[in-house]
Formats: sequence, C-alpha cells, structure tokens
Amino acid sequence: MNANVNWLLPNERLDDLTSYGLKIIQSREVFSFSMDAVLLARFASVPSRGRIMDLCTGNGVVPLLLSTRTRAQIDAIELQPRLCDMAERSVRMNGLERQIRIRQGDVRTIHRDAGCGAYDLVTVNPPYLKGNAGDKNVNDHIALARHEIACTLEEVVAACARLVKSGGKVAMVHRPARLADIIVAMRQYRLEPKRVRFVHPRLGEEANMVLIEAIRDGGPEVRLLPPLIVYSAPGTYSDEIMDIYFGQSRPPAEGERQ
Amino acid sequence: MNANVNWLLPNERLDDLTSYGLKIIQSREVFSFSMDAVLLARFASVPSRGRIMDLCTGNGVVPLLLSTRTRAQIDAIELQPRLCDMAERSVRMNGLERQIRIRQGDVRTIHRDAGCGAYDLVTVNPPYLKGNAGDKNVNDHIALARHEIACTLEEVVAACARLVKSGGKVAMVHRPARLADIIVAMRQYRLEPKRVRFVHPRLGEEANMVLIEAIRDGGPEVRLLPPLIVYSAPGTYSDEIMDIYFGQSRPPAEGERQ
Repeated sequence: MNANVNWLLPNERLDDLTSYGLKIIQSREVFSFSMDAVLLARFASVPSRGRIMDLCTGNGVVPLLLSTRTRAQIDAIELQPRLCDMAERSVRMNGLERQIRIRQGDVRTIHRDAGCGAYDLVTVNPPYLKGNAGDKNVNDHIALARHEIACTLEEVVAACARLVKSGGKVAMVHRPARLADIIVAMRQYRLEPKRVRFVHPRLGEEANMVLIEAIRDGGPEVRLLPPLIVYSAPGTYSDEIMDIYFGQSRPPAEGERQ
Repeated sequence: MNANVNWLLPNERLDDLTSYGLKIIQSREVFSFSMDAVLLARFASVPSRGRIMDLCTGNGVVPLLLSTRTRAQIDAIELQPRLCDMAERSVRMNGLERQIRIRQGDVRTIHRDAGCGAYDLVTVNPPYLKGNAGDKNVNDHIALARHEIACTLEEVVAACARLVKSGGKVAMVHRPARLADIIVAMRQYRLEPKRVRFVHPRLGEEANMVLIEAIRDGGPEVRLLPPLIVYSAPGTYSDEIMDIYFGQSRPPAEGERQ
C-alpha cells in the first residue's frame, strides 16, 4: 500500500481484513462488512482459475477475501455509487486492481454487460429483509444493503442463474427464515442446492445464518454439512471461527476476539 | 397386556418401546422401526386433542409413541397387510385400540375414506430411496418400506396436504439429500415449512436425517432448530438422545445404549 496516499473520505476508517494483511475501507454510516461475508468467502468452492462474480458486493469484502484463495478474475457489482467508490479504493489500496474489477450496476440487468453464462462461480450476500419494515431509522445506504428494496430474493437468484455457466456454482449467505424461499427460487431457476451449512451462535441455539451452494443444472442431491458454531463459550469464538478469521495470518491481539 | 395371549407370529419378536412401558411387535424379515421414527414422534408438535394421521406407519411405532403425548384420536395407514396386522396386534397388546386405529390403505387414495382436511396433524416417515436401485437383495416387505415403489415423495407430500386442515401441521422425517425435493414439493402443495431440525451422528459430521414440520397455508418463515447430535462420544448417546429414548421411563439396562 502507498502510505503517502490518503485513501479515506470523512467518516471512513481503515480496518484489517484479518487474513493475509489485507486492509478494507469501512464506514459506520455507509457500510461495514459482517461475519456473514467472511463465512461466505470461506464457504464457497472457489475455482483456481476462470471467472468469479460477486453480486451486492458492498465495500468489496467478498472479492478481497476471495483474492487470497484463487487467481481467478473477480468481477464485483454494487448498486450504490458511494459503496462502489469505497470498494474500488480498497482494491487499489491492496494493489489488487488487476484481479478485482468493481462495477456499478444493477443485478437485474448486469448480464447485458457481464454476459450470460460467463462465470464459474457467483457469490452473493444479498439484502436479507423483506421491504423495509421495522428499520425506518437507518439511512438510505444501510436500508438498500439490508432490505429487498432494489432487488428481491427471486431477482437475486435469477441474476445468479443468468450469470453462471452450466455446471458452475452459486454460493449465497442468507437468513434461515428464508430457507424455503431460497430453495424454491433456486429450483425454479435451475440452480440445484448441493451443499448447505447452518451457522448457530451457540451449540444449543437456533441457526441465524445459512450458507448454500448450488450448481447450475446440477442433480437433486443435497449435502448437509456439520453445523458451524460461532461461540464455544461466552465471549470465546470456536476454534473453527478463529481459524477462519485468523488462521491464515497472525494470532489475534488481546481483546480482539469479542 | 394379557400375558395368556400369544401375540407373536413366527419370526416376530416383542421389543420394549422404551417410554411408558409400551411393547411393540417387530420382525427382522418384515419391519423393525429405526431411530428416525422415534425422533419424528418426539419432534412433531402434537395437539392435545383432535385428530392425528400417521402415514406409512409400518409396524405402528409412531402412533404408539404419539399416544404417550396426547389424547387425540390417531389414525394410521399402512399399505402392506402383513405390517398392518403387526401394528394392529401391537395396538391391542398395549390396550390402545380406543385411541389408535390402524387401516390398510394407499396414501394416494386414502383421503377418499379418511376425508380431506380432517386432521390437525399428519406425521410421515416415508420410504427414503428413489426407485429400488442398489438394494435388490432385500425382500418385498423391506423394499416397499425403504423405496419409492408404491408412492413417490411428491405423492406423500400431496397426501399430507389433502389430509391436513388449513392451519394444521405436517411433520416428516427424511434424508437431508432430499431437502430441496421436500421443500419444493411442500411449497407446491401449500405446506409451508416452519420448523426444521437436522440430525448429525456426531458434532463434526454431516447430517443424515432431517425433521421438518410444515403448516398448511402457513406464512413463509422457517425456524432452523439447534442440531440434534446423536453420539457425544464413541458408543455413547448424547444427553438429548438418552432423554428421548429413556427420559420418560426407566433407566436403560446395561449394554442397551449402543
């Protein structure tokens, strides 16, 4: 990174992206990534070469993390120009502009530019919530990232199905509450769920996240992976979460685990 | 039980049904219940009164277990006359003939006699395997119970949807490999999945069973329950499995746990 450049706009901060010494630009007012994106980037079956598309990329956290696992060309789409700008600066700051290309675009129409059936893998961490009920106080940036305002779940699934090649993969993270909606939409658009993993905050608790990977035109047979448990004790991440966050790089600093 | 009656035919045996001192007639050559049925009977949300239907009842293990949890009238359907006869004798042997009625019948047509929308809860532990590939050596009794020979998954789901009343529940146990097929079929027949629980042999292993409860004409929101772990150590059932098997009755005899 060129330390002489001021990469940050007002109200932005620079965070470590844990693995491999990557940095990422975040903003509490605009967008900060969550554990969901980190788990998605680790869960996806990543091709060593070829082309990857990340939809609803936000500040680019998924493509940045994926770049540590592959030499594939990674395209990433974000609807909001403000977030695209953040993501693009993070890519340049990490010197990854040859591998990662951030584009402003709408998932519903991006295939016209990006091409149908052009990708080996499509990843997506879409807005989780229907409409914008119960969350009126957040600003437009946050609302667009959280709620199905600019695109519905079905439109996201349809976009994935258009972009991925036959036999290619689509990896999504979402809320378990939408499990039936996700699976029905995937089947409708010929994305066959093949690997599913639920994330539980603690062992005896209900899942609050689902990771799901589908194969375009795949056969109907699902593998249901072991549960991913986030906390092994109050305030202590499980070994698997520690490995996902810090396993590839340095040990966590004191107080960083919580 | 009337100890003077000989309840058993050749090649049959009498087994404890663990909870509440129930007994059940089994036969290695014809049908023995598995853990799947026990977990289904515990998982289902059982109405305290009203009417329950168990489809593909086999030797009647699910209605026998459900009878310990409710005063509802329980009907149970089995295609094979030989298994119906076993189930009926088990019901009489336990003195439950006023609560449980075993009928010989086909899930595809049983609504003509049993009535459409007549049940508060429908339970089913259907044949898991497609066709009868890879299992040619078993006899017809076992093959019919294991394979989708006499009815497909979609036909089972359709039958559940016809029998249950609007707002009533359907509880099914199946293999996770069929998760997408189950959910798509349920949505198609207006059974909305509401509670899903995966069963893993051990904590770090893939699930080999799924318990799924749907509500007829329910809203689209799924709760993904904590994983049910069968073994906590090699040869040792988890506390939850011990509770399900033995919690309501006596402690297990030596060597019975494995």
